[in-house]
Amino acid sequence: MSEAVRDRSGDLPVVRYQPTPDQFSWTFGGCPPVARLRPGDVVELWTEDCYGGNVRAATDLVSRVCEFPFLNPQTGPFYVEGAQPGDTLALHFVSIEPSRDYAASTTVPLFGALTSTHETATLQDPLPEVVWMYELDRARRTATYRPRSGGREVVMPLDPMHGTVGVAPAGMEARSAIVPGSHGGNMDTPEVRAGVTVYFGVNVEGALFALGDGHGRQGEGESCGTALESAMDTVVVVDLIAGTPTPWPRIESDTHIMTVGSAKPLEDAFRVAHVDLVAQVGSRCGLDRLDAYQLVSQLALTPIANVCNPTYSVVAKIAKEYLPSDHDPYRGTHVRFREQAAAYRAEHTPFSTTGGS
Amino acid sequence: MSEAVRDRSGDLPVVRYQPTPDQFSWTFGGCPPVARLRPGDVVELWTEDCYGGNVRAATDLVSRVCEFPFLNPQTGPFYVEGAQPGDTLALHFVSIEPSRDYAASTTVPLFGALTSTHETATLQDPLPEVVWMYELDRARRTATYRPRSGGREVVMPLDPMHGTVGVAPAGMEARSAIVPGSHGGNMDTPEVRAGVTVYFGVNVEGALFALGDGHGRQGEGESCGTALESAMDTVVVVDLIAGTPTPWPRIESDTHIMTVGSAKPLEDAFRVAHVDLVAQVGSRCGLDRLDAYQLVSQLALTPIANVCNPTYSVVAKIAKEYLPSDHDPYRGTHVRFREQAAAYRAEHTPFSTTGGS
Amino acid sequence: MSEAVRDRSGDLPVVRYQPTPDQFSWTFGGCPPVARLRPGDVVELWTEDCYGGNVRAATDLVSRVCEFPFLNPQTGPFYVEGAQPGDTLALHFVSIEPSRDYAASTTVPLFGALTSTHETATLQDPLPEVVWMYELDRARRTATYRPRSGGREVVMPLDPMHGTVGVAPAGMEARSAIVPGSHGGNMDTPEVRAGVTVYFGVNVEGALFALGDGHGRQGEGESCGTALESAMDTVVVVDLIAGTPTPWPRIESDTHIMTVGSAKPLEDAFRVAHVDLVAQVGSRCGLDRLDAYQLVSQLALTPIANVCNPTYSVVAKIAKEYLPSDHDPYRGTHVRFREQAAAYRAEHTPFSTTGGS
Amino acid sequence: MSEAVRDRSGDLPVVRYQPTPDQFSWTFGGCPPVARLRPGDVVELWTEDCYGGNVRAATDLVSRVCEFPFLNPQTGPFYVEGAQPGDTLALHFVSIEPSRDYAASTTVPLFGALTSTHETATLQDPLPEVVWMYELDRARRTATYRPRSGGREVVMPLDPMHGTVGVAPAGMEARSAIVPGSHGGNMDTPEVRAGVTVYFGVNVEGALFALGDGHGRQGEGESCGTALESAMDTVVVVDLIAGTPTPWPRIESDTHIMTVGSAKPLEDAFRVAHVDLVAQVGSRCGLDRLDAYQLVSQLALTPIANVCNPTYSVVAKIAKEYLPSDHDPYRGTHVRFREQAAAYRAEHTPFSTTGGS
Repeated sequence: MSEAVRDRSGDLPVVRYQPTPDQFSWTFGGCPPVARLRPGDVVELWTEDCYGGNVRAATDLVSRVCEFPFLNPQTGPFYVEGAQPGDTLALHFVSIEPSRDYAASTTVPLFGALTSTHETATLQDPLPEVVWMYELDRARRTATYRPRSGGREVVMPLDPMHGTVGVAPAGMEARSAIVPGSHGGNMDTPEVRAGVTVYFGVNVEGALFALGDGHGRQGEGESCGTALESAMDTVVVVDLIAGTPTPWPRIESDTHIMTVGSAKPLEDAFRVAHVDLVAQVGSRCGLDRLDAYQLVSQLALTPIANVCNPTYSVVAKIAKEYLPSDHDPYRGTHVRFREQAAAYRAEHTPFSTTGGS
Repeated sequence: MSEAVRDRSGDLPVVRYQPTPDQFSWTFGGCPPVARLRPGDVVELWTEDCYGGNVRAATDLVSRVCEFPFLNPQTGPFYVEGAQPGDTLALHFVSIEPSRDYAASTTVPLFGALTSTHETATLQDPLPEVVWMYELDRARRTATYRPRSGGREVVMPLDPMHGTVGVAPAGMEARSAIVPGSHGGNMDTPEVRAGVTVYFGVNVEGALFALGDGHGRQGEGESCGTALESAMDTVVVVDLIAGTPTPWPRIESDTHIMTVGSAKPLEDAFRVAHVDLVAQVGSRCGLDRLDAYQLVSQLALTPIANVCNPTYSVVAKIAKEYLPSDHDPYRGTHVRFREQAAAYRAEHTPFSTTGGS
Repeated sequence: MSEAVRDRSGDLPVVRYQPTPDQFSWTFGGCPPVARLRPGDVVELWTEDCYGGNVRAATDLVSRVCEFPFLNPQTGPFYVEGAQPGDTLALHFVSIEPSRDYAASTTVPLFGALTSTHETATLQDPLPEVVWMYELDRARRTATYRPRSGGREVVMPLDPMHGTVGVAPAGMEARSAIVPGSHGGNMDTPEVRAGVTVYFGVNVEGALFALGDGHGRQGEGESCGTALESAMDTVVVVDLIAGTPTPWPRIESDTHIMTVGSAKPLEDAFRVAHVDLVAQVGSRCGLDRLDAYQLVSQLALTPIANVCNPTYSVVAKIAKEYLPSDHDPYRGTHVRFREQAAAYRAEHTPFSTTGGS
Repeated sequence: MSEAVRDRSGDLPVVRYQPTPDQFSWTFGGCPPVARLRPGDVVELWTEDCYGGNVRAATDLVSRVCEFPFLNPQTGPFYVEGAQPGDTLALHFVSIEPSRDYAASTTVPLFGALTSTHETATLQDPLPEVVWMYELDRARRTATYRPRSGGREVVMPLDPMHGTVGVAPAGMEARSAIVPGSHGGNMDTPEVRAGVTVYFGVNVEGALFALGDGHGRQGEGESCGTALESAMDTVVVVDLIAGTPTPWPRIESDTHIMTVGSAKPLEDAFRVAHVDLVAQVGSRCGLDRLDAYQLVSQLALTPIANVCNPTYSVVAKIAKEYLPSDHDPYRGTHVRFREQAAAYRAEHTPFSTTGGS
């Protein structure tokens, strides 16, 4: 069993953690922490792909090489010192880089948006199981798709992201790492890419955040149920905003604020995301509920995140250029993170593992 | 802390268990067992009402006297010796009797079918909080409703039931006692009344079943979010069907077999319940998938159970008179239970506690 | 082309109408009336089955013998003299009798609850098309099911009903006879049987009601998409309640009042039905909104009607024994209808056609 | 009553049509054509705003100045010579320009995504009615939002579009102009802007297309139910692709192909849009169903269009750069349209009316 190692040599407090397979967690909540972190820590970590690394060739059907519930292994949970219910945990993604030169995507029986599932249950036969192996060119930042039944290749840009990141849920629950919710989890939105800050309301002492499910890239909706599933070398910075609650996961980029709603039916995910975005805009701009509703109605972007997981996710976002900058509920956290990320990059060579092998 | 007490005096193995408030559980999964049972045990137990007994008068608004997540306390979980994943746990309800002479029903902010909720989120103000206290006449088997804003009383029959009964979920999850699912939980169907057998697939060693949320009676859908919430004196018999899986909770009465599907949107709860009913009918009657589909289409009853919990529940049922009796996947368990229940009643005075006080 | 014939011989004004195939209507709204009726008229009419009578043997697959949109032919529309928007049309079903000695039920590609559909679209292959022919024994009131792939017959009771009945919709719309809505239409609830009164809000001058889609019997949900589809000889009495609006279809039996909500997702059909039932109960019992909500929550029955049509339907019902009898918004219409039906039956031999041939 | 006027002076066949209020249509289907067009025609037309021009000041509440069902007036329907069921109608938007210097947006009781509605019915009070008047600066291409309860203005870019465009529906239906579906209608996606081509399957002879509901701009989801509602001066080019069906509305821009799915729940709109996008990609790229599914899963963008209308709409889109250009089902229609639009602009001064006054 490997341990988190704290590097005290530089100006920034850097912790490195690469789990062994027995150290993965499979739920949010219900797991003991793998390491303790402090606000301000920079964490260099590695995450396995959603298949536990078991899909390595076109013949590796998920139903053969994976076993429920050992899907979507998470790195963590990490205990953040000082985190209390009612606080907000902020995680900044400095970098997310594929740690292998391939990614895999598959159909999985009764999983995905364009098939019947365990809950959208029908009497039809499931879709066939197929595996697509993608070649990743990390230098050129591309991935190559090859149709299984013949035809021309498609080269597409990498846009690495984490499908899953979250904290322990409220109400003493433990939720499968496949499920998204107000605790985050398997939201599967491409908005969780390098350069953004993600905010979660803290539900338990220590917050107990974990992450995984790296994607080399992903379409909006993740309709077949899987993306370019890839192990990742990832660097995050951790911080706490004490006394500030966050009801649903929020994302901040240099240009946008966003909320991720996760619920079923999909319109409820929309409602959750938009009600929170209206609240954010109201509070940032000093607008009453209906004035904020009106402004969001005209300016929001609303990309769908996932329609394949046990709950579905929708992102509601608005450009910061329309919002006054003087009422940030997170007190400049994103800007400070960007500075810390720059300082880290100035001081450190790119973080990379040997791909989990 | 009270302990389960095994009574060895009669012919039947009887266990009595009345939890103290510190012994309630608030989730399915994630809790240590409160007692160990053996297949064949008759259990006399007491369950507190969903408010933890804190709503005793019209002024006891839930938002004042209850605190999330300490809602819907469960009695249990009970460890059943020998229960393994892949088995079926069978619970027979011998009797369910209100243990107090009142029941309470309330609106709860952002909870219920005819209001916006945390997930069906809107910008409207929530409905007002109101409490209705019902007088229970246990001798006459009636409850009396009094409108809060004046008008005539309505006397309605008691039809006692448990809103919540289930086992530890699969996938290492712990689910709030407010949520129904394939593990059972807060299904809120009036079909869980005395005289029926409920079947659950076992997900963890010992099954770890628990129950609570007694209702003096309930409308189908539980539209305002609560029923005639009542502490209960309940007698159940426990059994195991080894090696027989049960994918979703099933109920068997003297006249019907049923499946309870829980999902969102509500049509998915319907689909889950009907796909399982088709499977049951196919297997009991030796019909192929489409022939069973046809038969269920013409004979099923489909009452809605709940449209207020985080997932919704639908019951699909079919009269046993249309099904050959010679292929019972549970090998006569219900009939044996009915005999045990009769033997218990012949030997024992009605079980009653002092109402939890 | 046949015409409606008014019989002036008896005490009751009786109109007889048996359409020829060119006289069917295929939408609610958008069709000229086939006959004019007066409030108080007793109408003896015949309706073709949903297949236009084209499924007569197990080899008559719907995709071969029927052609979209010529499905679910309706008898009507009938113009009711005096009917104005804002009024309520009341239809009482005196009798509904199969007019042939068989009924047919089928799977239809991409139609039904347990299959993907044109809207719940997946990439899976559709379920196979199969036809089941039922023998009807009209004297014994039974139907006989024969599995297509072998196995024992099941004899089930007849419970004849109309799947489709409604008026022209509001908003200048014309809706396919396959779709239910606030205008009624293809609600597919077994509650529309002989002995009940159905109420519709009038949207256009003359109301323009039509009906069809007779079922020898039907399971709740009509999961495979079709019931025991049967041509019917039906007798209805027509009346108007001027100045009384009815927002969604309501049904009154001797024992219950009901509302049928039709919407998607299914929980919205539930909400529509229950909000209207709360309104009805509030107005009948003199209760405010929350007191009525509470009462309905404890007393409602909520059987699902259909989960196969383009919109889904749910029935919310409550027993009249709990409701004071002195505030009937329809001013005793149902009781008067029962008397008229008795008078009709005393005077007339059972109405029967020669089965449409 | 004004008439469509054909201008034969230039190289391009130009038709100009500005309806008077009595010439609006309120449904798709069920209306006689206002003019006949030929494939290749350039049509200069004017559309009124969704309020019929009746909201001109902050005191013009919709419930006072508009009357159901006279909402969302459409310009048309236009009969396209030669259009037959099974063909595709292609409409290219050359320009869409606000014809007044203001736009209005409002809340409407029981309409919008973040409120209960007639179908998502609750017992809560509706949100208050409010009107926001926007100043449009057509030269600077901006609109100015002013909060009603005070606070700073927000200047936002114009991005003019039509919320509503479609053809007569299939199945002899007439659908309210407020409802989107497979015939198009009130899809409310900002993708219907100048420069795109929209394709519809023809359901009736002449296609009978109409359009309206101009928006100065709109957020994705149109959460409050209305956008910057604006009368528009619009130029479209019309064409037919004979013998090529189009099951759901498709949009083509210079960079993307898209499908708009409209259904409830919202995941069904997603499914419809993605199943059609998979079909398009499969056919354009010569991929089998599962290979196309995989490619779309990784490359699709999926912005939500509307969550406020009686059915909801989702756009699924993919960049053309990933698709071989040699299998265009519409045989280069979009490219030809772009050339025609350029020719029109070279020959004509910008089309503008006097704003409908």
